[in-house]
Amino acid sequence: MAERVFGDVKGVPVGALFPDRKAVAAAGIHKPLQAGISGSANEGADSIVVSGGYEDDFDDGETLIYTGHGGRDQESEKQVAHQELTRQNKALALNKQLGLPVRVVRRVEDPKVLSSGMNYRYDGLYFVTDYWCEPGKSGFLVYRFRLEKDPFLVPPMAGVQSDVPEDDAPAPVITTAQAERRLALVNRIKRDSKVTKAVKKMHDDTCQVCGVRLVTPLGAYSEAAHIKPLGMPHNGPDSTDNVLCLCPNHHVLFDYGVFAVNDDFSLVGTGYEGQVLRRVAGHQINLEYLQYQREHYFFLDIRSR
Amino acid sequence: MAERVFGDVKGVPVGALFPDRKAVAAAGIHKPLQAGISGSANEGADSIVVSGGYEDDFDDGETLIYTGHGGRDQESEKQVAHQELTRQNKALALNKQLGLPVRVVRRVEDPKVLSSGMNYRYDGLYFVTDYWCEPGKSGFLVYRFRLEKDPFLVPPMAGVQSDVPEDDAPAPVITTAQAERRLALVNRIKRDSKVTKAVKKMHDDTCQVCGVRLVTPLGAYSEAAHIKPLGMPHNGPDSTDNVLCLCPNHHVLFDYGVFAVNDDFSLVGTGYEGQVLRRVAGHQINLEYLQYQREHYFFLDIRSR
Repeated sequence: MAERVFGDVKGVPVGALFPDRKAVAAAGIHKPLQAGISGSANEGADSIVVSGGYEDDFDDGETLIYTGHGGRDQESEKQVAHQELTRQNKALALNKQLGLPVRVVRRVEDPKVLSSGMNYRYDGLYFVTDYWCEPGKSGFLVYRFRLEKDPFLVPPMAGVQSDVPEDDAPAPVITTAQAERRLALVNRIKRDSKVTKAVKKMHDDTCQVCGVRLVTPLGAYSEAAHIKPLGMPHNGPDSTDNVLCLCPNHHVLFDYGVFAVNDDFSLVGTGYEGQVLRRVAGHQINLEYLQYQREHYFFLDIRSR
Repeated sequence: MAERVFGDVKGVPVGALFPDRKAVAAAGIHKPLQAGISGSANEGADSIVVSGGYEDDFDDGETLIYTGHGGRDQESEKQVAHQELTRQNKALALNKQLGLPVRVVRRVEDPKVLSSGMNYRYDGLYFVTDYWCEPGKSGFLVYRFRLEKDPFLVPPMAGVQSDVPEDDAPAPVITTAQAERRLALVNRIKRDSKVTKAVKKMHDDTCQVCGVRLVTPLGAYSEAAHIKPLGMPHNGPDSTDNVLCLCPNHHVLFDYGVFAVNDDFSLVGTGYEGQVLRRVAGHQINLEYLQYQREHYFFLDIRSR
């Protein structure tokens, strides 16, 4: 089997059009002819096809909420079972952990393009920046993935030149080396808000899970974790009652849903039995946000339903 | 005292010219009239003036190596003592930890501009992405800081349009909200190389310092830490003998020089007495790189000299 190619495919520019899935596959952009996700559970996903199958999916060109695979009846296309974090869903989730880009192919909606016989368009690279699960309209749990356009491929003026149709905007030429360099740079920038600073201070930079307090030559070091995430579609607030003070290890574990916090502040998750969240006077935590994190990110809970 | 302003100053565009330091201060860009670094040891630095004082400083417009303050004889301007990680130096170092931008003002070198009576130019926002210390030409230790231009203010074509002088290139218009959004996005992207993947696998994602092995629903989670950093001016290689497998907590502590590894693989640093780096057969570590990290990042060692 040929090696899975992550990233752009040589010779296929962003915006390339294809008549059908066979042509998309032949170009090396998305190889499966039926499946929406191309990937494996131990390597990650290299491409997806967005066909707008789920009613509640969101797509504004830059940010895309994509629903995972499985649990649908083949004939009726209705959701008849919970989706699982296995196979293609796990592949796409792995992209978040590994920082791998996904090629995104969209079904064309522009009637002018469609009339020329072209039905699919390669829309470039996206990153999986989050995933969670939630009840779909059927009541069964579905996995949802947030994909965001590679920021170095977004023309800086895109947000301003709204009179230029996005499809016609020229893709800026950036070499892979430049993109990698900038990505490496911005990965080292973590910005604090007044809110996150305040929470860290209330806890004296002590992890609310394990009690560790890291100290560097610059002083104590901790991280602020939003309980209900900021940004689409969660839209959690940047307020102190939505933030925990964690060490980097527990920040990672919280974000991946390894543990959660009950309404009585006891911790839940394998290995967290009998533990309680450390709290300090003055730091109120909103129970609604804890519930949101449990229901959307705490995967052990979901698996045991 | 007025609140310290981080980031752009309203009404002062990138490229703004000033006749003297007094005018730079009056505009709110860099308030001290003499000091190169404006900042405080508990808030961070809001601006610097680059005047090219140190012979071995590097500046290609996008990346700037800046030497810290102190230890110089006022009259001869020669280095006569070690610099310390206090006051303005600590302020600038804090920007790395807090992700705060620094306004950079450069002395003008273009004779045409100079002849118009303008001596200083506001060059926009930079991030402190690294700091370390090393012996200067005098033999005394100096602190050095790597500053990198805000990637969202760099025109995407900058690396390509080399015929356009950088000073004349129009600054792309990006709103603060857009920049924050993209920064938040790229902060969530961490990319692995083949080399870092290989090291994580050799250690089965177990931290070489504390032995912890974090597990998420996607599998084990560890981080790869380069011993001698990649990139200017260190230019450490992306090779397995220059990488350690660490948990996120020890990755932070290693990068901030809280501990280091001796040539016999014993750990050194407060709280690390008697501990030894966990090793596995097949993962060779280059002792030169360990020495480089000790000499440049291990600040406890330097403070005790």
